[in-house]
Amino acid sequence: MLINESVKTPAHQCFVDVTKLVQSAVRKSGLKNAHILVSVPHTTAALTINENADPDVVKDLLRRLDSFAPVNFPGDKHGEGNSHAHLKSSLFGTCHPFIVHDGDLVLGNWQGIYLCEFDGPRTRNLLISIL
Amino acid sequence: MLINESVKTPAHQCFVDVTKLVQSAVRKSGLKNAHILVSVPHTTAALTINENADPDVVKDLLRRLDSFAPVNFPGDKHGEGNSHAHLKSSLFGTCHPFIVHDGDLVLGNWQGIYLCEFDGPRTRNLLISIL
Amino acid sequence: MLINESVKTPAHQCFVDVTKLVQSAVRKSGLKNAHILVSVPHTTAALTINENADPDVVKDLLRRLDSFAPVNFPGDKHGEGNSHAHLKSSLFGTCHPFIVHDGDLVLGNWQGIYLCEFDGPRTRNLLISIL
Repeated sequence: MLINESVKTPAHQCFVDVTKLVQSAVRKSGLKNAHILVSVPHTTAALTINENADPDVVKDLLRRLDSFAPVNFPGDKHGEGNSHAHLKSSLFGTCHPFIVHDGDLVLGNWQGIYLCEFDGPRTRNLLISIL
Repeated sequence: MLINESVKTPAHQCFVDVTKLVQSAVRKSGLKNAHILVSVPHTTAALTINENADPDVVKDLLRRLDSFAPVNFPGDKHGEGNSHAHLKSSLFGTCHPFIVHDGDLVLGNWQGIYLCEFDGPRTRNLLISIL
Repeated sequence: MLINESVKTPAHQCFVDVTKLVQSAVRKSGLKNAHILVSVPHTTAALTINENADPDVVKDLLRRLDSFAPVNFPGDKHGEGNSHAHLKSSLFGTCHPFIVHDGDLVLGNWQGIYLCEFDGPRTRNLLISIL
């Protein structure tokens, strides 16, 4: 089963919490024990797992990423001005595996799943593959 | 089968070689050909695969990570002072897949699996999911 | 089925597009819906998914990586002078999962799969595991 969800990203660079979207797909599938894949089939966005308790964490992540992967980097050859977003996409990765155990997604207490937008705002696809 | 191992990390930032823990779980399972997942369900730790022959490699990795993801970064908003660790966790990733072939973990000659501690010392969970 | 392809990398640091190699392995397998793993079992190379339309994107990625993970970094202890390559390998990762749906690899319009060489030129192994 390949589920395709649309996710609107509200800013140029932002993290959108998609944990509940993925949990809901897992519960609907009725699967007990499995490995699923979640993919953002784009090259200027990514997925990551990080803290979703304090919203300041993802703000710090974005600001720190910009400190070594700045939007403007003299000498970039790619004409669209978004090479920073391509780099961040490769650094965080676009397709991540998750463990399903006893019918639920296995995440730590502080872990949430984020779709990371680095070249928005846009509407992005989020694929959830459950075999 | 979801195995939960406890791993003590001895320093604030350090890499702990968990290759043998994972290999042992694979051998006990009796599986011949499979894809397994190894996860560190935390947001200030990570997993990575890198050289385990020369112990200086991981020392260089930690020092180089600190050069662009420093512990102290003026302007961080997250109050716990560990935003650097959250960033490193997202950069290296917390859940990685591995190939099992002919009953054994498939790794290159120089590859070992490390639990990466970025906010220790602590006791961390290492999950190994074998279907 | 574990396929081992040899990939020659032509320069010290370069990205080699292996999308067609992986697609071809998937089609030959006859699998309809699956999760496959692609691995580069090395510690100074990596895999990533990024844009393969404009060849300038990967040039920018390499130059930007060198800006915060430079080849020469005073104080490196590992004697082989390739600690930058070990770091880049951990940042991008060496083993990535992919979704196969309706008999084909699921990639976005702009996504290609690259073997990333950070310490070449060499001949590298590319493993494709299809269960």
